Amino acid sequence: MRVIKVKDYEEMSQVATQHLLGYMTRDGRQNISITGGTTPKRMYEILTPLVKDREEYQNIHFYNFDEIPYRNEDREGVTISGLRKLFLTPANISENNIHKLDQYNYTEHDNNIKADGGLDLVVLGLGWDAHFCGNLPGTTVFGDKTTKVECNQKMRERLLDEFDNNIEDVPDYYITMGPKSIMAAQNLIIIANGKRKAEAVKALIDGEIKQDLPATILTLHPNLTLIVDEEALSLVE
Amino acid sequence: MRVIKVKDYEEMSQVATQHLLGYMTRDGRQNISITGGTTPKRMYEILTPLVKDREEYQNIHFYNFDEIPYRNEDREGVTISGLRKLFLTPANISENNIHKLDQYNYTEHDNNIKADGGLDLVVLGLGWDAHFCGNLPGTTVFGDKTTKVECNQKMRERLLDEFDNNIEDVPDYYITMGPKSIMAAQNLIIIANGKRKAEAVKALIDGEIKQDLPATILTLHPNLTLIVDEEALSLVE
Amino acid sequence: MRVIKVKDYEEMSQVATQHLLGYMTRDGRQNISITGGTTPKRMYEILTPLVKDREEYQNIHFYNFDEIPYRNEDREGVTISGLRKLFLTPANISENNIHKLDQYNYTEHDNNIKADGGLDLVVLGLGWDAHFCGNLPGTTVFGDKTTKVECNQKMRERLLDEFDNNIEDVPDYYITMGPKSIMAAQNLIIIANGKRKAEAVKALIDGEIKQDLPATILTLHPNLTLIVDEEALSLVE
Amino acid sequence: MRVIKVKDYEEMSQVATQHLLGYMTRDGRQNISITGGTTPKRMYEILTPLVKDREEYQNIHFYNFDEIPYRNEDREGVTISGLRKLFLTPANISENNIHKLDQYNYTEHDNNIKADGGLDLVVLGLGWDAHFCGNLPGTTVFGDKTTKVECNQKMRERLLDEFDNNIEDVPDYYITMGPKSIMAAQNLIIIANGKRKAEAVKALIDGEIKQDLPATILTLHPNLTLIVDEEALSLVE
Repeated sequence: MRVIKVKDYEEMSQVATQHLLGYMTRDGRQNISITGGTTPKRMYEILTPLVKDREEYQNIHFYNFDEIPYRNEDREGVTISGLRKLFLTPANISENNIHKLDQYNYTEHDNNIKADGGLDLVVLGLGWDAHFCGNLPGTTVFGDKTTKVECNQKMRERLLDEFDNNIEDVPDYYITMGPKSIMAAQNLIIIANGKRKAEAVKALIDGEIKQDLPATILTLHPNLTLIVDEEALSLVE
Repeated sequence: MRVIKVKDYEEMSQVATQHLLGYMTRDGRQNISITGGTTPKRMYEILTPLVKDREEYQNIHFYNFDEIPYRNEDREGVTISGLRKLFLTPANISENNIHKLDQYNYTEHDNNIKADGGLDLVVLGLGWDAHFCGNLPGTTVFGDKTTKVECNQKMRERLLDEFDNNIEDVPDYYITMGPKSIMAAQNLIIIANGKRKAEAVKALIDGEIKQDLPATILTLHPNLTLIVDEEALSLVE
Repeated sequence: MRVIKVKDYEEMSQVATQHLLGYMTRDGRQNISITGGTTPKRMYEILTPLVKDREEYQNIHFYNFDEIPYRNEDREGVTISGLRKLFLTPANISENNIHKLDQYNYTEHDNNIKADGGLDLVVLGLGWDAHFCGNLPGTTVFGDKTTKVECNQKMRERLLDEFDNNIEDVPDYYITMGPKSIMAAQNLIIIANGKRKAEAVKALIDGEIKQDLPATILTLHPNLTLIVDEEALSLVE
Repeated sequence: MRVIKVKDYEEMSQVATQHLLGYMTRDGRQNISITGGTTPKRMYEILTPLVKDREEYQNIHFYNFDEIPYRNEDREGVTISGLRKLFLTPANISENNIHKLDQYNYTEHDNNIKADGGLDLVVLGLGWDAHFCGNLPGTTVFGDKTTKVECNQKMRERLLDEFDNNIEDVPDYYITMGPKSIMAAQNLIIIANGKRKAEAVKALIDGEIKQDLPATILTLHPNLTLIVDEEALSLVE
């Protein structure tokens, strides 16, 4: 694991953008799975004007790595909708370059990625509880590939935020690439900032692998870069 | 994990030689950690005349990934001695290209490898109990780097074979690269043949990660090739 | 240019096979353009049993880099027919993995290769007059991509050999990838043996770039390996 | 050759910075040869705050690819002095990471680079006369490695600019990596902007290789990226 220390959220976003662009500027097709949520918001703000409508990025293909479908509506799920809002739509990425994972195709997702040549890069956020993608403590195990995770009532409440607190929209399950699917990518970047992530970052740097701290497994990847700010590092000596 | 099916020991040895040579024929320095024991015996027999005294392999550097020192004697340990006998001496590999891991330098081994540019390849055997290197069930955990493993009486008895059944030579500890050190290599090749390995091979292919089947962790590596014969595959549907 | 010195034709063939297999054992699609003629005959003899019907080579795609069509017959040309006889048929390579260059598609050949991801490797012979592919002195210039070369009477006589001395079959033109198309590949291997090649080999090693010694341009490629025997090296100090 | 079209000097500088950073963010040692002169001025302005004092760039090594020594003074030459002013000093690059080419070591330069693992990237400007590095029309030939170029009176006058119009400082020779040395790098980036470069850019895109338009040889490199603005493209249809 390569650890890149940054001062704060702004610097994390700048540095993460540079690393992500480092893959996007390569020649030939690049398959990149990108994270939604709040952590990468600024990164996408910096990235968008740099790549929007630029012909040379037409060989970059984007994948989402998890999805929370709406319960009763046949509309795009929370993850892909969020990625569209944060990046794919403002950057005007062609639909041909957007490869959606959802409840209809998840059993084929790993095979599809393999047929596309595999993932070159996954950019990941880190949960305060050391979850990554939809691999929350207690949901998947290290050997899982892309899978459906059943949601109990507690998990549904945790997901309320994603649905504007409308419990009727919260589904009984979500989809996620499992640890084995993420580890199969050639490169991983984790971004983490803020005190709320300090325990999870400490777990990664301590290096012990624990099933109930799912992201610790990623420290076994040969090409993992952690971009982390001072607050998130505050529990590390 | 890429699985390459071969008929028998001879074909496994031929194919493994081709894959190993695939790295050795690359230009520029290549750092390769190679396995001793009985499984690779024929592979080294095939390899030796192909590489002996050939100038173009002077950029290939070899590392051992575990070592069992002699208890009371200040001589080279079991692993490096075995590698010398099997390959390094008959192939006339220069001492400058042999990087020994032993009880004196193991705390620096991971850093030394990193300073050398990292391992490009590790060629591994697979134990009947799914051990790899010195990572036997109950000895190391997934987060371990290169480490010293204390041997209880049972383990010392298991090691008797390596010392011509001379219990006085069997040490109280051995050295091994841990799972984290091995996973840090860019490429892994596992060779496995014979019915005795069938349970371990089945565990790798089933894909569940279990601490008491240490090699299952290697299935999370993005560039793992398993070269396996029919007998070793006999428990897999 | 990396120069690998071998004793004789047999050793050249062995070493070239290892290098070619070094690319073929890589994971994922590999696009390889291979040479016909007499030089690689033994190489293909060694290679064929190693790759025939082996599932793991299904991701290897083969391309011919020149073609001499029959004058009045609608049958496959001299190059692809030769490659089939030497290697593609005995090795049982699937038609899906054979990408023919001929008089009907040559204007699209460079674009097709680019769409396929580019050539990973070209294995080339070397003419006594330092030609490579169909780039004979006086036919193409360094800036040419895949092109049609008109044949005058002298060239048609030179090609007689390829048509069992039947002048009626010899065409008025042939097709070849030009220097620019070959240089666009990521890796080049040249094999050369025998005294007849000594002048051409000397030109490559001297390193001067001359239009009338076409292969000298290849010495500017960043990843060129020359596998050459003692006789072919006999004019080099 | 990959052509990336940009609007103007500012956009060229932004895009070139992204591509350069794409190599600098890679893990492990990267050897990069960078251009001086006026073209990259803005690129270095953008780059400097992004890399200054950042620990993760300590594995990036910089090389100059030509040098014009002062005639009578034992001080650093024009190229390295310029690079220091433009980038190396403001970015606080360690002396350990600066590998100077000069009149004292140029005969060893190619071997030194090879021993360092080769150049991963060269960032080049393009002369209005299609020169690159010190390869001006009439000075070097395509087969040249790093060499000393004698300066006649006309050339000395051309170099006056570099010496604040002080003819006494202008030397009788300069040093440059030749075409063969530059082509040996794994990746090339050429930046070009403005109408003054339009003829040279047209020559690159037309693709004919001409000794008196030295940079045309670079179009034979398998990994060449040309970043070029609208004015510099104005002669290309």
